[in-house]
Amino acid sequence: MTTNKQIHLVSRPQGEATVANFKLVEAPMPSLNDGQVLVRHHFLSLDPYMRGRMNESKSYAQPQPLGEVMIGGTVGEVVESRHEGFRPGDKVVGMGGWQEYSVVDAAHQGMLRKVDTTHIPLSAYLGAVGMPGVTAWYGLVKICEPKAGETVVVSAASGAVGGVVGQLAKARGCRAVGIAGGPDKCRYVVEELGFDACLDYKLHSDLKSLSTALWDACPSGIDGYFENVGGMILDAVMLRMNAFGRIALCGMISGYDGQPIPMQFPQLLLQSRLKLQGFIVSEHMQVWPEALKELGTLVATGKLKYRETVARGIEAAPEAFLGLLKGRNFGKQLVKLI
Amino acid sequence: MTTNKQIHLVSRPQGEATVANFKLVEAPMPSLNDGQVLVRHHFLSLDPYMRGRMNESKSYAQPQPLGEVMIGGTVGEVVESRHEGFRPGDKVVGMGGWQEYSVVDAAHQGMLRKVDTTHIPLSAYLGAVGMPGVTAWYGLVKICEPKAGETVVVSAASGAVGGVVGQLAKARGCRAVGIAGGPDKCRYVVEELGFDACLDYKLHSDLKSLSTALWDACPSGIDGYFENVGGMILDAVMLRMNAFGRIALCGMISGYDGQPIPMQFPQLLLQSRLKLQGFIVSEHMQVWPEALKELGTLVATGKLKYRETVARGIEAAPEAFLGLLKGRNFGKQLVKLI
Repeated sequence: MTTNKQIHLVSRPQGEATVANFKLVEAPMPSLNDGQVLVRHHFLSLDPYMRGRMNESKSYAQPQPLGEVMIGGTVGEVVESRHEGFRPGDKVVGMGGWQEYSVVDAAHQGMLRKVDTTHIPLSAYLGAVGMPGVTAWYGLVKICEPKAGETVVVSAASGAVGGVVGQLAKARGCRAVGIAGGPDKCRYVVEELGFDACLDYKLHSDLKSLSTALWDACPSGIDGYFENVGGMILDAVMLRMNAFGRIALCGMISGYDGQPIPMQFPQLLLQSRLKLQGFIVSEHMQVWPEALKELGTLVATGKLKYRETVARGIEAAPEAFLGLLKGRNFGKQLVKLI
Repeated sequence: MTTNKQIHLVSRPQGEATVANFKLVEAPMPSLNDGQVLVRHHFLSLDPYMRGRMNESKSYAQPQPLGEVMIGGTVGEVVESRHEGFRPGDKVVGMGGWQEYSVVDAAHQGMLRKVDTTHIPLSAYLGAVGMPGVTAWYGLVKICEPKAGETVVVSAASGAVGGVVGQLAKARGCRAVGIAGGPDKCRYVVEELGFDACLDYKLHSDLKSLSTALWDACPSGIDGYFENVGGMILDAVMLRMNAFGRIALCGMISGYDGQPIPMQFPQLLLQSRLKLQGFIVSEHMQVWPEALKELGTLVATGKLKYRETVARGIEAAPEAFLGLLKGRNFGKQLVKLI
């Protein structure tokens, strides 16, 4: 091992993000100080929130600095340790970024977490048993607060977060309806993930068409909505929300590249007495143990299903990320590094 | 007493409501059955929610039927009773509608409530110690959940609801900032109601100007927002909301006549992790006793101030109501009937 290949952000997008915003850099292998651990990454996680970090403008987090390794979740194996809590061979999850190796100050609480891969695949700790899974759990359980018999809708339903939302809703006795792009994803959402129905938004070019289809799929209206997309999909769902419905606002990927998309009917929030709440899962660390326990048990017993799209090699990360923003992935988007 | 003058809704507005939507009718005085009470109305309450009832379209309540007495809150005096719980001379608050007299089935829980006018003026039971006051209390206390030291903003700040919101926020140790139309209302909000500041939205024709003024008035950002107006004012406030801010959506009067106004920056709900919740106070009857106790004590002791605009005679109700929709009233809009 001589070099550590990294992907840096080198410019900020004007409108759509492109591969030219990223650059492959070959850095020397780092050496360790006391208390540090060297991790070789097996998988890098690609997630929609990264698009927001590429912008200069104010968002909920600091912008990704230019000329530095892109941030991102990683799972891997400890290859060298100068911290008594970690040994070579330990499987770990952390925020190693878009690179092959990372050095972690293991003493910092929460920077690196050992995981058990006896019953749960290592990559799942970046998906259903990781940040996306807890995101699904928090938005559904703490904001949508579904009751048995209610109808829960989730957009980007075949994705790493959406797929978990629907399955957790089903486990709570709800009708689960997904929205996804294309017949393959919709079939997967219903046949493999067990949703009651899934709408292909690509078949509906206007609000009326999508809203009518939602009416058919949700004959009792919609009580909980888990939003990953925004734009016209949010408008269409709001038209079908029941009184006292709850909307967990997790993402608005439709507006990430370019101008934000207005909400057409804010008066529905009043007329239907809706609650809408935006959240970021990393600000609710107190729920992670409870959520990870449920998610880990469900994955280990085969009751929670998920799919992964795996790109190969760190060089493939930028293209894979841009594909994610366009919905080209199917389930959790990963980059396999070894 | 020979006739009972009433105002009926006779047509639905196309865009702006007009006096032609209403008609004065002279009905015969009703006679009483067992269990009924005849109330002579002293004051009729005019409230923005009535505009929504004039439409055919789905809202949170049934539309006002055509050819019937307009609904509305009333205070008055029992003049005849065939119910053991009420005697002539009792002061009562109810939903008597736009007419001089009403017959009430007093046995129906909540249809008619006796009130004490020793320390509280009768008309206040339609304002600060009535539905508008409880509306303010619920949205502020239960949705905005203000903590001492936080900044609370309220639109339509000189109105029956807005004025109470700010005074209750001050009583809880918050900075209270109002938005109102015109220098007289703004001066009243600050000098008489005790808000820390009040912006005149009429001085700000565009979003940037209003948002900049809000920045000056709320140097620590905005933690709680009580919305009565919607449209550009909501957009401007959202731009200044702090992380984890709460928005109580009580009204959107700017869009009541004509097309609903889109929300320009829904992504702020996510970026700033806001909670936004629509509500109707009549659906939260469980809080009324607690709220009315606080509001009644504050009014009786002179600590909660309010102003009334009083039109005279039932014939004046339609014009007064249309004026309310345009912000021509100052404080609580009433019609005095005797």
